[in-house]
Amino acid sequence: MTANENGVQSEGQRGWVQSVRWNGERLDLLDQRLLPEEIVYLPLETPHEVWEAIRHLKVRGAPAIGIAAAYGVFLGIRDAQEDESISREANRRRLAGEVAKQADYLATSRPTAVNLFWALDRLKRLTQKLVEMDISHGEMKQAVLTEAISIQAEDEETNRRIGEFALELFEDGMGVLTHCNAGGLATAKYGTALAPFYLAQEKGVSLKVYADETRPVLQGARLTAFELQQAGVDVTLICDNMAGAVMKKNWVQAVIVGTDRVAANGDVANKIGTYSVAVLAKAHGIPFYVACPMSTIDLSTPTGEDIPIEERGEEEITQGFGKRTAPQGVKVYNPAFDVTPNEYVTAIITEKGIVRAPFAENLAKLFEE
Amino acid sequence: MTANENGVQSEGQRGWVQSVRWNGERLDLLDQRLLPEEIVYLPLETPHEVWEAIRHLKVRGAPAIGIAAAYGVFLGIRDAQEDESISREANRRRLAGEVAKQADYLATSRPTAVNLFWALDRLKRLTQKLVEMDISHGEMKQAVLTEAISIQAEDEETNRRIGEFALELFEDGMGVLTHCNAGGLATAKYGTALAPFYLAQEKGVSLKVYADETRPVLQGARLTAFELQQAGVDVTLICDNMAGAVMKKNWVQAVIVGTDRVAANGDVANKIGTYSVAVLAKAHGIPFYVACPMSTIDLSTPTGEDIPIEERGEEEITQGFGKRTAPQGVKVYNPAFDVTPNEYVTAIITEKGIVRAPFAENLAKLFEE
Repeated sequence: MTANENGVQSEGQRGWVQSVRWNGERLDLLDQRLLPEEIVYLPLETPHEVWEAIRHLKVRGAPAIGIAAAYGVFLGIRDAQEDESISREANRRRLAGEVAKQADYLATSRPTAVNLFWALDRLKRLTQKLVEMDISHGEMKQAVLTEAISIQAEDEETNRRIGEFALELFEDGMGVLTHCNAGGLATAKYGTALAPFYLAQEKGVSLKVYADETRPVLQGARLTAFELQQAGVDVTLICDNMAGAVMKKNWVQAVIVGTDRVAANGDVANKIGTYSVAVLAKAHGIPFYVACPMSTIDLSTPTGEDIPIEERGEEEITQGFGKRTAPQGVKVYNPAFDVTPNEYVTAIITEKGIVRAPFAENLAKLFEE
Repeated sequence: MTANENGVQSEGQRGWVQSVRWNGERLDLLDQRLLPEEIVYLPLETPHEVWEAIRHLKVRGAPAIGIAAAYGVFLGIRDAQEDESISREANRRRLAGEVAKQADYLATSRPTAVNLFWALDRLKRLTQKLVEMDISHGEMKQAVLTEAISIQAEDEETNRRIGEFALELFEDGMGVLTHCNAGGLATAKYGTALAPFYLAQEKGVSLKVYADETRPVLQGARLTAFELQQAGVDVTLICDNMAGAVMKKNWVQAVIVGTDRVAANGDVANKIGTYSVAVLAKAHGIPFYVACPMSTIDLSTPTGEDIPIEERGEEEITQGFGKRTAPQGVKVYNPAFDVTPNEYVTAIITEKGIVRAPFAENLAKLFEE
């Protein structure tokens, strides 16, 4: 399937590209590894295919991973047959067990993004409740699908609200730097960190975006620059090591990034390099904002030290784009994420509002409201 | 010509690779763009070929550029014929004019590295003096070649001394981060920033080197990791955006880099990304050292603001890996260098010793001694 068939959709923005699509029968997943050169949707029919797609970064971005995994669970149970020799309740219990099994499997695809676990837990909790309700086996399966669709729809609404709050922090004419891709491609729509740029454009507010290319996988170059350019947003691509130089030139008045997990104390795990950007921002007196849905905030993780950091293969650095660019056998360190301690974070922007220090206190409050 | 014929030389280190070689007839230049995959020497016969090689980064590294350009001047005058209808002195004056013309041409190949201008000026000053001496046209041409050979030989000795001084700053077992390539490949031998690593190895001092890959041209991955690995030095390759993360882990106790030009006040121009590394080092309480020959210090440039910064083509960023990795037509900012203000510099290490703040005063003193 290519862009010509059903790739590029227009929804008020030019060339808006959706990363996760339920087509009624299967999950159509935009292969983000092929961007920006090719827009190809992969037809996924099984949880294993979804697991592979998450593992190999065909889909990435914390909310998009959660959405894809939720559909993955449904793909794993949609063919489950009712056993007429046992009770309706026993069948529901068995189905709930199957949902839990699929969810636990899909949870092993990547270790850092908390939205993955959040979405899968949501399906497990739902089905545990449904066991007690007098519904049919088929209705229960349908409820799992409906929940996955809801997760996706809510994400779009959530991101729009994040964008509205974030935009309050920016003024017309500002330069804003972002790292990695926390955009529409990483979510149902709008993105988290990129949401204010889409909303700014809708409202006629002019922002100048600097996108770090984000080695080794180049999500900034391949995805952020791509989706903002598609939407007509003013974006300039730089290498990661140029962030300090553009800050020194006073071209940047704010930094905004997404996150894969926020700990209870406001420490932020995000794509490798985020920490360096945060330190540079602080040294230049530039505010450093983190945008995320509530589902990315994990009060059960006390601090950033408790967040597992995935290390990935050396080939991403030594031959990331099909060509060897480092000597054979060289030692490589390739963490996929880093943790930015809360003292570097100016504010965390959620769909429920903007949170500032002290984060431990104010994040907890957000969940009480 | 390939490695099998005469590429890899062994000079006490395993696999020491020389970047600039005068073979008696022409300049054999290691094509650094092809590293680490291929070791190919380009036979250069004309100043224009040398100019092209500098411009297109076949040779790079401030001292190596100066050395190559000096040989380039000789290539431009070696076929100059004596005009028997005018005096010997008039012939010498004409030859000096030709040297100046070739030097001025080669000076246009790259704008930032001061060693280029320093080496070319040295040849111009030499020939101006020779005009007044009673030597033959052929002797004067030979003197130009001898001077180029001296520039190369002195660079090796200079770098060895820089390495000795730098090594005083490091202790056995330390982790040291470097950015770009200020190594043997960038110089006659040893390099500047990498010299202490070669000397440490000779002396049995164990250092753990972290090499930033250095986007966009990946000199750290292709050259630094390559030459240190060839020499058996313990080197770990990271992406530029991981520098902050490895500092936060306390894996790095010092940073050392080369430079293309040091201003009179101690501001340092070096490969893009150096400034970010310097800011990160300061934030982590890690000393930031700059290694360079005296010829890189330019007292006629008052501050870093006065150093011209070369901007290069967007394709280095958008398709630097032989494959398009950013969308067509995206805006790109691609400065080749940045300036690190002197307040981030712990010390400048030269062949005459280690200079610390106040730099304006102490650099000037160094030239008086």
